[in-house]
Amino acid sequence: MHTFGVMEKRITLLQLEKFVSGVFMAMGCPLDDAAVATRALVAADLRGIDSHGVARLSGYVRLWEAGRINARPEIRILHESPSTAVIDGDGGLGLVVAPWAMKVAIAKAGLAGTGWVAVCNSNHFGIAAHHAMMALDHGMTGMAMTNASAIVAPTFSAERLLGTNPICYAIPAGEEPPFVADFATTTAANGKLEILQRKGADTPDGWLQDAHGKPVNDAHALRNGGALLPLGGDREHGSHKGFALGAIVDILSGVFSGANYGPWVPPFPAYVPMPENQPGRGLGHFLGAMRVDAFRPAEAFRADMDRWIRRFRTARPVTGSEHVIIPGDPERESEAERRVHGIPLLPVVWDDLRTVGEKFGISL
Amino acid sequence: MHTFGVMEKRITLLQLEKFVSGVFMAMGCPLDDAAVATRALVAADLRGIDSHGVARLSGYVRLWEAGRINARPEIRILHESPSTAVIDGDGGLGLVVAPWAMKVAIAKAGLAGTGWVAVCNSNHFGIAAHHAMMALDHGMTGMAMTNASAIVAPTFSAERLLGTNPICYAIPAGEEPPFVADFATTTAANGKLEILQRKGADTPDGWLQDAHGKPVNDAHALRNGGALLPLGGDREHGSHKGFALGAIVDILSGVFSGANYGPWVPPFPAYVPMPENQPGRGLGHFLGAMRVDAFRPAEAFRADMDRWIRRFRTARPVTGSEHVIIPGDPERESEAERRVHGIPLLPVVWDDLRTVGEKFGISL
Repeated sequence: MHTFGVMEKRITLLQLEKFVSGVFMAMGCPLDDAAVATRALVAADLRGIDSHGVARLSGYVRLWEAGRINARPEIRILHESPSTAVIDGDGGLGLVVAPWAMKVAIAKAGLAGTGWVAVCNSNHFGIAAHHAMMALDHGMTGMAMTNASAIVAPTFSAERLLGTNPICYAIPAGEEPPFVADFATTTAANGKLEILQRKGADTPDGWLQDAHGKPVNDAHALRNGGALLPLGGDREHGSHKGFALGAIVDILSGVFSGANYGPWVPPFPAYVPMPENQPGRGLGHFLGAMRVDAFRPAEAFRADMDRWIRRFRTARPVTGSEHVIIPGDPERESEAERRVHGIPLLPVVWDDLRTVGEKFGISL
Repeated sequence: MHTFGVMEKRITLLQLEKFVSGVFMAMGCPLDDAAVATRALVAADLRGIDSHGVARLSGYVRLWEAGRINARPEIRILHESPSTAVIDGDGGLGLVVAPWAMKVAIAKAGLAGTGWVAVCNSNHFGIAAHHAMMALDHGMTGMAMTNASAIVAPTFSAERLLGTNPICYAIPAGEEPPFVADFATTTAANGKLEILQRKGADTPDGWLQDAHGKPVNDAHALRNGGALLPLGGDREHGSHKGFALGAIVDILSGVFSGANYGPWVPPFPAYVPMPENQPGRGLGHFLGAMRVDAFRPAEAFRADMDRWIRRFRTARPVTGSEHVIIPGDPERESEAERRVHGIPLLPVVWDDLRTVGEKFGISL
């Protein structure tokens, strides 16, 4: 989507799926796990969230090489109640563990109305929307959150203590496509920062601070001990609310599950040492499913969601501006287009994938 | 808390409770309901959220005079599953309906691990924290949201389609006091705007837009068709995330319950006409309770929450700045002080309460 004047050669979905699943199998993932992980990873590329898709495949491989990912996890339920479960991901790929856990949430919701699953001992799970949207196939609302390694400073903190900690809600409608909101709890997602880094451009105000907590516009501030800022940017613009949101995601994902939290969450780059004195195991997620008809007859619910979506989509726009965007619309349009015309990859991503392929003798 | 050089005379908690419950009983509320409503309303004054406490009592009275509040509601469960319920508030005070519904959520959580209650046909419920914190007394995590009349414009909309739609999570700890985050999903809460209006001061950027959607700093912009902005302020600073949050609160509170949503939520000022073609009944809430030990042994959970809170509270602060504030700390400190020394009320609030008292023959 973001070309910067660089040619992006496209790859077909089938070709990309074949390559990615081949890599996961070469890492030792069983066939079914490799398929689940591939669908989760490539969902990001289809939906236009290029920062979270195959551009990260080599990062997962390096984590596996460093012994930080278990390719053959024995995922299990540690504890459960009618509407809850805690799941031990056994160090597996979050791309495999989260869908496993989401299935448990959906099964619980089928019986108890809602299902809520906290996951420990996992790794990065890709985009939250992929997992939350699994509930849509069952006519349910899905919810997915995860904590992540600390690159965000709470309001008034010079230290990085939170990840970008995303939240996704996927809510079914009737004739309208579903409402799918998936967002980091920072002013700007890391992916957007990477785009400005590649461009050599400064960031807007409210995105970053330096190692002393001073607001800066240098897109490379994270390298020098700086931090991303919570949604809001500063206190006057509500950053304490963005901090609270990131904290809620961290607590639900980390403390409810027995995973790590705050500054102790394992880093994604394999070369970054693990934090010392970790209180829990791995990284944590919090997933949920709610049966619509545990609240209202599904038809009445769907009719109201359609009315909600149509009223907001047709709101009188700001003079000279775009229309109101219903969360999920741009990603769905990207997916429809890319399923037909293929997925554009930057030259640097092509090169990265080829290097990974050569390692395992898999051609792209 | 905000004096603007004006003398704030204090009132004791007991005196205020006696007066407020007298007013609710004069409106026709049964004794128990009056007590519940009084505790919910005065909780805002105790916690320092002065905009949502007794400063609004006359507003509730005017809604009752306009026939928009039922002082003797027959609250009932419309539908339920093991972990969910939908409740019809019968047009009662949200201050009465929400605690009733929260008790159902807590009872469900006791049996099913979690309980989730959508409420329709209600009215404004005061501060979300009061309801969410009911779960803490049972060693549970509480969650409360509500929609509200539309004074917020979604990103790219010139129209007001959402309320300030607050979210509260109350999470118990061990030796540390609980984590209680309660915040509007806008850059600035309406109460903060009112403070600037009284001061005659401009607002910071990112708080407001005018009737055409142009960003403005005039604290009175709402009077002329303007709108509050979602958390983030504008697209570049993540307002689409604040919009998504407000939308999620609106859908959970309105669409899940069968209440109104979006621009159809009933207004708080009794002189504002009801929106036409309302799709639902009254205003909606969404409340939840999660049993901590439905996830992990309570002691392990509490120890990790203590560690979380201590690590964040002692974070190295930004040079020359305050320390990191754990959500709930300022409100708890306010309550401790005001329980002892009484609650400061602005002269305009004293006058307003006296006028209400005269109406019912109750002296303050």
